[in-house]
Amino acid sequence: MAKDVHPPRGMRDFLPADHLKRTKVLNGIRATYMAHGFQEIETPALEDLARLTSGQGGDNEKLAFRVMKRGAELEAALAASEGEDNLADLGLRYDLTVPLTRYYATNRSKLPKVFKSIQAGPVWRAERPQKGRYRQFVQCDIDIIGDSSILAEIDLLVSSLDALERIGLSAATIRVNHRVLLTNLLEQLGVPEAGRGSAMITIDKLDKIAAEGVVAELAEKFDASVAERAAVWLNAISENLPVPSELAPIFEAIEARFGSSRLRFDPTLVRGMGYYTGTIFEIEHPESGSSIGGGGRYDGMVGRWTGEDVPAVGISIGFERAVELVSDQQVQSAASNLVLVLDSTAPTVVGNALKLQSALFEQGYSVRLEQRPKKLNQLLENLALHGLTHFAIVTEDSSDIGALTIKPISN
Amino acid sequence: MAKDVHPPRGMRDFLPADHLKRTKVLNGIRATYMAHGFQEIETPALEDLARLTSGQGGDNEKLAFRVMKRGAELEAALAASEGEDNLADLGLRYDLTVPLTRYYATNRSKLPKVFKSIQAGPVWRAERPQKGRYRQFVQCDIDIIGDSSILAEIDLLVSSLDALERIGLSAATIRVNHRVLLTNLLEQLGVPEAGRGSAMITIDKLDKIAAEGVVAELAEKFDASVAERAAVWLNAISENLPVPSELAPIFEAIEARFGSSRLRFDPTLVRGMGYYTGTIFEIEHPESGSSIGGGGRYDGMVGRWTGEDVPAVGISIGFERAVELVSDQQVQSAASNLVLVLDSTAPTVVGNALKLQSALFEQGYSVRLEQRPKKLNQLLENLALHGLTHFAIVTEDSSDIGALTIKPISN
Repeated sequence: MAKDVHPPRGMRDFLPADHLKRTKVLNGIRATYMAHGFQEIETPALEDLARLTSGQGGDNEKLAFRVMKRGAELEAALAASEGEDNLADLGLRYDLTVPLTRYYATNRSKLPKVFKSIQAGPVWRAERPQKGRYRQFVQCDIDIIGDSSILAEIDLLVSSLDALERIGLSAATIRVNHRVLLTNLLEQLGVPEAGRGSAMITIDKLDKIAAEGVVAELAEKFDASVAERAAVWLNAISENLPVPSELAPIFEAIEARFGSSRLRFDPTLVRGMGYYTGTIFEIEHPESGSSIGGGGRYDGMVGRWTGEDVPAVGISIGFERAVELVSDQQVQSAASNLVLVLDSTAPTVVGNALKLQSALFEQGYSVRLEQRPKKLNQLLENLALHGLTHFAIVTEDSSDIGALTIKPISN
Repeated sequence: MAKDVHPPRGMRDFLPADHLKRTKVLNGIRATYMAHGFQEIETPALEDLARLTSGQGGDNEKLAFRVMKRGAELEAALAASEGEDNLADLGLRYDLTVPLTRYYATNRSKLPKVFKSIQAGPVWRAERPQKGRYRQFVQCDIDIIGDSSILAEIDLLVSSLDALERIGLSAATIRVNHRVLLTNLLEQLGVPEAGRGSAMITIDKLDKIAAEGVVAELAEKFDASVAERAAVWLNAISENLPVPSELAPIFEAIEARFGSSRLRFDPTLVRGMGYYTGTIFEIEHPESGSSIGGGGRYDGMVGRWTGEDVPAVGISIGFERAVELVSDQQVQSAASNLVLVLDSTAPTVVGNALKLQSALFEQGYSVRLEQRPKKLNQLLENLALHGLTHFAIVTEDSSDIGALTIKPISN
């Protein structure tokens, strides 16, 4: 009996054409990053749950899929009834940054002193599925660990802009801010030190609740004078604010390289993650309503594992959003995909087909084998839908390529 | 404080050089399969646990990592105390075949009539970790769904042998048997129909317990006459047995294509999986003590989801074992990896470096940026260990490529 079969909720199957597009786009990003001297690494999909929930992952920690203990350990945990947290020992990674900092701590003696890493792979989050949000999705991160200078930021931004250009997204721009500027601002607004985190959360909502909403929320959280100063500040924000000195060398370098500024200083950019300590970035594209990536400096995080301070900065391309912006045409190849239709499965015909296939590989064809069905046209029409472009019939007489007639599949 | 940080037990981090080798080998296999007209697909890492444990996965079902329910569903399951099975709703895939048959059932209306799939990706098994066995490892499968003819077997075997040759494993050979031949044999030995599965399990142990062991175990399980006939049969097995008619067309085609037989008929080949219905294969390599892949025909399995019989046959390359056989030399590239050492991070120097990097990309270099440390030689020595081959110093005067001196890193 036929069953109702689907992938799990919020997760996706990829058809061959979609998979091919995704692979080409991801490999384009990878190749660009490698050309810039970054090196790809891989960590397991699972990490010890205690590490995934040690406070480095922010709100995402709650979204980790938890893997149950097994065998005697599970029995013991069930018998102890110490609550659900005790039943799981592993978790699926919800980002690539927590695993990277763990990886660096594990492997740093075998890595270059300044480590420039690429990571591209799936992450999992037990979010309520909604349009454009998936429970398994791909992230593509680059990070530089061990360089506290602004050269690291410049390297990341140039590499990312090159990677986006490589996949056809040369219209992408990056908003930039600095946590120190945010801190200074909050001081000027009169926000008490203890309220800074809370004030940043409010400012982070600017897109959603507009300036009035931010002012109202600050009045509620703090007092009227904070709100008033915030209103003046928000009012003064324009498209072309002068770039503060903390960020000027970055803007200068990008302009020198690209001939135009691909960056925009945005004093209202917060980015949620608590672990950022310096520059923060968010990638935008005119055709996308939401950001297609982001990152920043997180100097304190690696030290949690290594016990010594190690500077680090990273940027992540949200692959799912980026790939949606890439047109199918951009990744289509002009390859000739041929189908050899075997007149029968008699040994001579099969032997001929295999020899012809081998010879056609040399000519750059990809060559699929099919038996001749009763309705040849139906087969060819079906295969045309799946990217096949040419066909040839193989018979007992098709002993070499000269005896073969290759025709385009007309559809 | 430094913590003891490792990936979870039985799982691995990959250093950049290892990752690069793995990627090149896997992409070599993929490219070969694509040239043969196979199409790559992707399914989620997680499947509904009920599907993963519905009897199609054999012994591997017990090894599935189980993912705990979340939120209210978990609370309800805990409150109901209906046992541990009720606490999980998803599982990590333990092979690529069960997800493939589910995928085919979900997506068959959008696939070619004869579907030739490639799948390459990680699977997870909660096995006791031991040398060469991992809890996360990569499989690379091709399958043909919808073709009951022997052309499907020939296509799979030719494609696999080509893929193995592409990655330098041209010494690989494939042992072949047929489940019908095994059934006929057991009948001749006098094994009652109900005892066939059990007898196959015994024969499958031939490698481990030798002919005497098999005979002894059959005597124990059945009777002396079965054991006697088995002894005669095992005694008659030699290297060059005549190929039975069921398999002859396959052997003939492979010999026509490769000029020599890459196949060996092995009447003792069983392969554990209960779902095989026809031909069975196992890939061997002279430098590997264990098989590096295998597969067979499983005509009944897809029908479990679709409700109608669909023929299917597949072969899997055990990627972890195959990649170990590939020498590092085989995948080394002759690429020039250059490091531009910036004399300082002054804006002119950074600007020069970025323009030079861009120009050097055009010449085919990959270009890493580094700040000049106090000890330049130490930096270069370290980078040489990580694949960098050339360097150049960028100063305020390095305004174009003509002003740059590129030197090999001597080590």
